Amino acid sequence: MNSVHNKKIKIGIIGATGYTGQELLGILFRHPSVEIIFLSSESNSGQILNQIFPNLNSNIKFITLQEAKKFSGNEVDLVFFTTPNNIAVNEAKYFLDKNISVIDFSADFRLKTNEEYLKYYGFEHKNLELLKNALYGLVELHRDKIKALKKPFIIANPGCYTTAANLALIPVCFYEGDKFNLNSIIINGASGVSGAGKKLEASLSFNEANENFKAYNIAGKHRHTPEINMVLNEAIAGSKAKDVIASGEAKDVIASGEAKDVIASGEAAWQSKPRIKVSFTPHLIPMYRGLYTTSHIDTKNDFNIQDFYSYYSHFYKNDQFIKVLELGSLPETKWTNKNNNCFIGMDYDPETKRLIICSTIDNLNKGAAGQAVQNMNLAFGFAEEMGLV
Amino acid sequence: MNSVHNKKIKIGIIGATGYTGQELLGILFRHPSVEIIFLSSESNSGQILNQIFPNLNSNIKFITLQEAKKFSGNEVDLVFFTTPNNIAVNEAKYFLDKNISVIDFSADFRLKTNEEYLKYYGFEHKNLELLKNALYGLVELHRDKIKALKKPFIIANPGCYTTAANLALIPVCFYEGDKFNLNSIIINGASGVSGAGKKLEASLSFNEANENFKAYNIAGKHRHTPEINMVLNEAIAGSKAKDVIASGEAKDVIASGEAKDVIASGEAAWQSKPRIKVSFTPHLIPMYRGLYTTSHIDTKNDFNIQDFYSYYSHFYKNDQFIKVLELGSLPETKWTNKNNNCFIGMDYDPETKRLIICSTIDNLNKGAAGQAVQNMNLAFGFAEEMGLV
Amino acid sequence: MNSVHNKKIKIGIIGATGYTGQELLGILFRHPSVEIIFLSSESNSGQILNQIFPNLNSNIKFITLQEAKKFSGNEVDLVFFTTPNNIAVNEAKYFLDKNISVIDFSADFRLKTNEEYLKYYGFEHKNLELLKNALYGLVELHRDKIKALKKPFIIANPGCYTTAANLALIPVCFYEGDKFNLNSIIINGASGVSGAGKKLEASLSFNEANENFKAYNIAGKHRHTPEINMVLNEAIAGSKAKDVIASGEAKDVIASGEAKDVIASGEAAWQSKPRIKVSFTPHLIPMYRGLYTTSHIDTKNDFNIQDFYSYYSHFYKNDQFIKVLELGSLPETKWTNKNNNCFIGMDYDPETKRLIICSTIDNLNKGAAGQAVQNMNLAFGFAEEMGLV
Amino acid sequence: MNSVHNKKIKIGIIGATGYTGQELLGILFRHPSVEIIFLSSESNSGQILNQIFPNLNSNIKFITLQEAKKFSGNEVDLVFFTTPNNIAVNEAKYFLDKNISVIDFSADFRLKTNEEYLKYYGFEHKNLELLKNALYGLVELHRDKIKALKKPFIIANPGCYTTAANLALIPVCFYEGDKFNLNSIIINGASGVSGAGKKLEASLSFNEANENFKAYNIAGKHRHTPEINMVLNEAIAGSKAKDVIASGEAKDVIASGEAKDVIASGEAAWQSKPRIKVSFTPHLIPMYRGLYTTSHIDTKNDFNIQDFYSYYSHFYKNDQFIKVLELGSLPETKWTNKNNNCFIGMDYDPETKRLIICSTIDNLNKGAAGQAVQNMNLAFGFAEEMGLV
Repeated sequence: MNSVHNKKIKIGIIGATGYTGQELLGILFRHPSVEIIFLSSESNSGQILNQIFPNLNSNIKFITLQEAKKFSGNEVDLVFFTTPNNIAVNEAKYFLDKNISVIDFSADFRLKTNEEYLKYYGFEHKNLELLKNALYGLVELHRDKIKALKKPFIIANPGCYTTAANLALIPVCFYEGDKFNLNSIIINGASGVSGAGKKLEASLSFNEANENFKAYNIAGKHRHTPEINMVLNEAIAGSKAKDVIASGEAKDVIASGEAKDVIASGEAAWQSKPRIKVSFTPHLIPMYRGLYTTSHIDTKNDFNIQDFYSYYSHFYKNDQFIKVLELGSLPETKWTNKNNNCFIGMDYDPETKRLIICSTIDNLNKGAAGQAVQNMNLAFGFAEEMGLV
Repeated sequence: MNSVHNKKIKIGIIGATGYTGQELLGILFRHPSVEIIFLSSESNSGQILNQIFPNLNSNIKFITLQEAKKFSGNEVDLVFFTTPNNIAVNEAKYFLDKNISVIDFSADFRLKTNEEYLKYYGFEHKNLELLKNALYGLVELHRDKIKALKKPFIIANPGCYTTAANLALIPVCFYEGDKFNLNSIIINGASGVSGAGKKLEASLSFNEANENFKAYNIAGKHRHTPEINMVLNEAIAGSKAKDVIASGEAKDVIASGEAKDVIASGEAAWQSKPRIKVSFTPHLIPMYRGLYTTSHIDTKNDFNIQDFYSYYSHFYKNDQFIKVLELGSLPETKWTNKNNNCFIGMDYDPETKRLIICSTIDNLNKGAAGQAVQNMNLAFGFAEEMGLV
Repeated sequence: MNSVHNKKIKIGIIGATGYTGQELLGILFRHPSVEIIFLSSESNSGQILNQIFPNLNSNIKFITLQEAKKFSGNEVDLVFFTTPNNIAVNEAKYFLDKNISVIDFSADFRLKTNEEYLKYYGFEHKNLELLKNALYGLVELHRDKIKALKKPFIIANPGCYTTAANLALIPVCFYEGDKFNLNSIIINGASGVSGAGKKLEASLSFNEANENFKAYNIAGKHRHTPEINMVLNEAIAGSKAKDVIASGEAKDVIASGEAKDVIASGEAAWQSKPRIKVSFTPHLIPMYRGLYTTSHIDTKNDFNIQDFYSYYSHFYKNDQFIKVLELGSLPETKWTNKNNNCFIGMDYDPETKRLIICSTIDNLNKGAAGQAVQNMNLAFGFAEEMGLV
Repeated sequence: MNSVHNKKIKIGIIGATGYTGQELLGILFRHPSVEIIFLSSESNSGQILNQIFPNLNSNIKFITLQEAKKFSGNEVDLVFFTTPNNIAVNEAKYFLDKNISVIDFSADFRLKTNEEYLKYYGFEHKNLELLKNALYGLVELHRDKIKALKKPFIIANPGCYTTAANLALIPVCFYEGDKFNLNSIIINGASGVSGAGKKLEASLSFNEANENFKAYNIAGKHRHTPEINMVLNEAIAGSKAKDVIASGEAKDVIASGEAKDVIASGEAAWQSKPRIKVSFTPHLIPMYRGLYTTSHIDTKNDFNIQDFYSYYSHFYKNDQFIKVLELGSLPETKWTNKNNNCFIGMDYDPETKRLIICSTIDNLNKGAAGQAVQNMNLAFGFAEEMGLV
C-alpha cells in the first residue's frame, strides 16, 4: 500500500457528462485529497463544463471537456471510465501503459470470459489479458485485495443491481451449516429511471415512464444475472475454503485473495457441485434515483431466524456503509438519496419457511460513483469514507 | 337469472367518498342501466356530493350525502359497500333483510373462518352465517355462479393484489399433468399509493411516498396472502375435480358450483394433500394508480413453455378483460389506467427452469370498482362489459 | 345544420398514434354516433393499432395504420388531423376536395396571416385561401358559428394554453364599463409534459423532467401568445359591437358571426385603439396531464368584485363544461383528468387592486381531443356533450 | 467579529426532526467547525436520532432527542430553531439570557409589527423588544450587518419564497434612474411539497398532491407577501439613501446599517411616497424540493435590457451562491437540489415592455437550512461557504 495521505492525487474522467459521471464529479468536489485534471466527453467535447452542469460551484467548472484520445495523460494518477460498455475495454490500455490506474464503471472488466461478453453484452472482448488482471471491486467482499493492489491497477466497479443483491446475499453464502437451498434464490429488483443512463429512448421519456411500473429483461436476460451469480459462487467458494482451512473468518480468507488457492488445492468435492443460478427479475420504478432488491431463499428445517440474524448483523459490523436494520424492519430507497449506504432488512415466513432479505442503495452513488470512490480511497491509502456521505 | 334489461336498477353506495367509491361513481355515471338513488358517507354526511368531487358532470352531483343508518332503503335494488373493513360485516344484514342485494368492496365476506379474520384483520367476525352465503366474486373464475345468484345476494368483491395475482396463477393450477412445484410460488407485488386508501398517515404523505420504493407487510403478513391461497387452492380443487368427473372443462366445473360436491364425494386423496402456500411480498410504488404482480413458479423437467403458453392464452379466450400478451412480452401498469383490463405476460428461464408471469391491473378499477360493476352486470343480467372500458 | 342523428358519421384520423390522437381514439370509442374507418400514422404505418396501444378493447384495435396519402377517402365524413404543425396546411385540401370536412389539432389554421406563421412557426403558409375559410373553434365563444357551418368545413381546434387562458379572460373582455386596464394582463401558464407531445428530447426525458419545474419560451416567444391575443381582441370587438347595436348579448352577437360586420360599419373609434397584448409565461410541471393558467388584471377604482363575480358566473351559465367555482375557491389540475371540463376560480386583492383568475383543463382532452369532439358534435348536429365526460 | 476559526462552535437544534431540521443536520455533519451538542423534538422526545433518520452516518445518530425545556443550555454557542411559527417567539429569550445566540427558521422575528403578526399569522407577538433587536438575515443584502453582530444575537432566517423573490428583485430596486413601474410587480411562485413542512393534511397526501398543480393563498393572502414587500422597500430605501449620500455603492450602504440613519435625516421626500406592494401568487408543484419565482415588472420607455443585464450580473459579482445566467437563459429547480445556490435568469418582451425575471432555490437549503448556515458562518467569522455546496 502506497500511502499518499499528504498529497492530492490527480484524476481524469472519461465520459464525465453522463449521470454517473456527474455524480462522481459531485463527490470528488468534496473530496479533500483529489484534484481533477482532465475531463473528456465525446458528446460535449469543446464545451466548458459549466455549460453542461450550470450548478457547479467549484473552480472545476471552467475546465474544457476534451476528447479522450487528445489526452496526453502522464500527469494523472487515476482515470475513471464512466462510459457505456465496450469503450474502456479498448481504451484502458492506453492509460495503463502510461502507468495510470483505471477504475471502470462499465461491465467491460467485470465478467470472466469472452463467452459471457458475447452472450450478455453482444461484443467480443478484445482485451482478455487485461480482463484477467482486473479486480472486481465489491469493497465489502474484496477490501484487502483492493488495499493490496499494485499500481497501475484496473478495478471493475460492480453493477448497481449486483451490488445491492450481492450485499444482501453474501452473508447467506457464508453461513455455516446446510441451512439454505441455495438454488432457490429469487431476486426481484426495482430501479429508478436514472439506472438506464442518459440515452434518449421512448420508454425513458417522462410521458411513458411517469406513473408507470413494469418488469423488463426477466427470465435471466438481464446482464447483471451472470455478475450476481459470479460473486455469490465466489462467496460460496470462500465459505467452503474456510471449512477446509478451518481457521479465521471465511470473509477474511476470500478478502485476502487466498481462497482460490485453497480451493484449488483442497476443495475438489465442492468444485464439482452445481453453481448457484439465481432468478433475477428487474422492474422500472417511476422515480429518479434508488434501487431495491427483494430476495427469497428457501431455508431448511432447522433454520433459526434469530441465530441467523445475530450472525448477519455481526457479519457487517466493520462495514460502515452497510446498515443492517432490526429484524422485521424494512428499508426504503429514499434513505439512500445521494449517499453511499446500503440498507438491509429481513424477515422470515414460518409458513413457507422462506427468508426474505430486502436491500437498497442509491444506484448512482453506492451503485456507481460512491463505490468507485470507496475503491479509490482503499487503493490509494485514504480513509475508506473520505469524501463520502 | 332475472333479466332487467329494459329498466334501470336502483343503486345505493355506502362510503361513497373514498377512492374506490369515487371510481365507482365515475363508472356508474357512464352506465346506461343504473340510477343512483342514495349515497352515504360518515365523514362527509350532510354535504352535497359536488362539494367533495367538484369535477362531476352528472345531475348526481346534487345528491346530499347521508348517514347509512338514516337510509330507509326499500327503494333500491343493490347497495355497494365501499367502506373500510369491519363495517359491512355488521351493516349488510340491514339491507339484505329489506331484499336489497349487497356487493362489498371490503374483506368482510372474502375469507372462510373467524380464525382468519382474527389473525389477519384483528376482529371477530359477527356474521358467520352471512359469510357462508356470500359469494367470492372473481368473475373469470366464478362467472356462472354469479349469473346464477338469487336475490338478495351478497358478493365479496376480491382484493386488488388478489385479483392480479390469482388471474395470473389460476391457469397454472388448472394445467394438466404434474408440471409445477406448486409450493414454490413466490409473488412479488407492487402497488400505487391509492391502494392504501384515503387515510392520513405520514408514510402516505407526498413528502414521504414520492421518489420512494419499499417493501411492506412481507413474510406472510399481508392480508391478501390467505385470500390468494384460498382462491388458488379452490382452483386446484376444481382441477382435481375435473380429473374425477372426466368431463367438460375444469374451469366450467368450478364455475358452476359443482366442484365442491364432486370433491366432497370422491376426491379424498387430493384433500389430504398439503395446500398451496404462496410467498406474497408487496411493495409501494411512487405513483397513484396501478398494481403489478410478478410470480415465479418452479417447473418440472418436462415442462414445455410453448405448450403451456398455447394452453394459457386459450384459457382466457372468452374473458374479454383478460389480455394475454405474446410470449416474452411484458405488461406495464400504465396500460390499465382507468380501465377494467388485466394484462398478463410471461417468460421462461431455461437456466433456472422457472416460469415468470407478470400481471397488471388498475387497483381502483379492475381491482375494485370495475370488477364490482362486472359482478353487478352479471348478477343483474346485463352485458358483462356494460359501462366498463 | 344537417342533422345526422339517426346514423353514424364515418371518421378518419391522420396521425393517430400521438398523445392527442390516442386521447381522441379513447373518446371516439365511447361515442355512440361515430364509426372509425381509417387511421394513418407516418411512423407506425403498416402496424395493427393494437400493437401500438395494447390496452384497446374495441374492435378498432385490428385496424391497420396506413399512410395518409394512400387513403382514397370518399367513404368518410370527417377527418381529424392530430399531426404536428405544417402538415394539415398542405394535406387538408386533398380531403376538402373530396367533400370531407376537417378538424385540425395543429396551429395550421388558427392564425390570420402568413406573417404570423413565419414569425411564430417558422414556415410559410401555403394555403392562405383555406386559412381565410377556416373557423377557429373555441366552442364557448363560437358555438353558433360552428353549428352553422356548411360541409365540407375546416375547423381549427384551439391550442391548449389558449383554451384555458381565453376561457378565463373572455368574460373580462365582455364586461361592461371601463373597469379594467386591459393592457395589464399577465398570464402565467403551467403544463404537464404531455403538452410537448411524443417527440424525443433530452429535456422531456424522465430523468430531466421529473422533480423539475422551469419557465420556457417566456417574453412573448411562446406560439400561443398571438393566438391568445387574437381571441381576446375578437372578444373585445364583440363587446364593442354590442355597445353599437345595443341589443342582445354581446356573446351572442359575436357567436352569430355578425360582430365583424357591425364593427366594420360602425365601430371605427374602437378600431383605431391599440389591441390587447398579453404577457404569457409558460412553465413545465413534472406531471403527465393537466394545464393551469393564472391571470392577473389591474382593475380600475370603482371595480366591485361581487358584481363582477355575479356577472362572470352568469356568463357561462349555459356552458356545461365550464365550471365557475365559488369566489375565492381555486381549481386544481387533478380535477380535469381525462375530462372535458374547464374549472375557473378567482380572487381579488384589494391592496393591489388586481383581479386574479385561475383556470385549468386537461391539455389532452378539453385542450385537444375533447374540444375537437365538442366541435364535431356541434358541426354534425349531435348533442354537444355526446361521448364526453 | 469574534473569530473562532481554530475551535469548533457548539450547537443545539430545537425541532430537529422536521424537514428543515433534517436538512440542517445534513449540512452540519459536513461542517468542519461545528459540534452538535443538543437536539430537541417535541414529537420524538426520548428517541435516539437514528430511530428517526436511519440514514445518518455520523456519531450524532446516537444523540437522544430531548424536550427543549429540559436543556440546561450554557454549554452551547448557538441554537437553531427549526420549529413552526409562534414557538421561538416565546422560547428564544431563555437561550439569549444564557448568552446563547439564536437563528430562527420561523417567521417569529421577520416582520416589524404586532399588527402584521395578527393579520398574517394569527397570533399576538409576545416579545416585541426581541423583535426590534432581531436581524433579518438575507445574506446578500445584509452581509456586513451579519458580520458585525454582537453575541448573543438573534437572526431571523428569511422565508423560502421571500428569498427567491427578493434575490431576483433587489437589483431592480437599486437600479439607477426611473426605469420601472415598481407598483407593477407581479410574482408567481411555485414550490415543491416539502415547503409545507411535515404536517399531516389531506391536500399534502401523495394521492392528492401527486400529478396535481394548483394555486393557493393568492390575492395577498400568503404570509410571505408582507415579508417580500418589507425587504423590497428596504432596498428602495437603501437605493434612495445612496442618492442622498452620493458615495459608494447603495448595497454597501444598506449592508452596513447606515441606510436608515441617512434616510431618517435626509430622505423625507421618498418617505412620503407609497411603498411597493407586490402581487404574490403561489402554486404547489408535484415534487419534493425546489422553489421557483417568475416576476414581471413594467419598464418605462427608455429601458435598455442590455444595460440592465450588465448592471444586474455585476450586482451579484461577489455573491458566490447567486448565479446569474446569460440573458435569455432560464433556470430549472433541479439545478438547486440540495445546494445553496440561487439561479436567476431573465428576458425582456419588447411588445409589452415587460421584464421577466425567474429565480430558483432549493426551499430546504438556500430557502432554509443552507441560508441559516450561511448566516452562522458570517456571524461566527467562518468562511461564508463553509459546509455548503
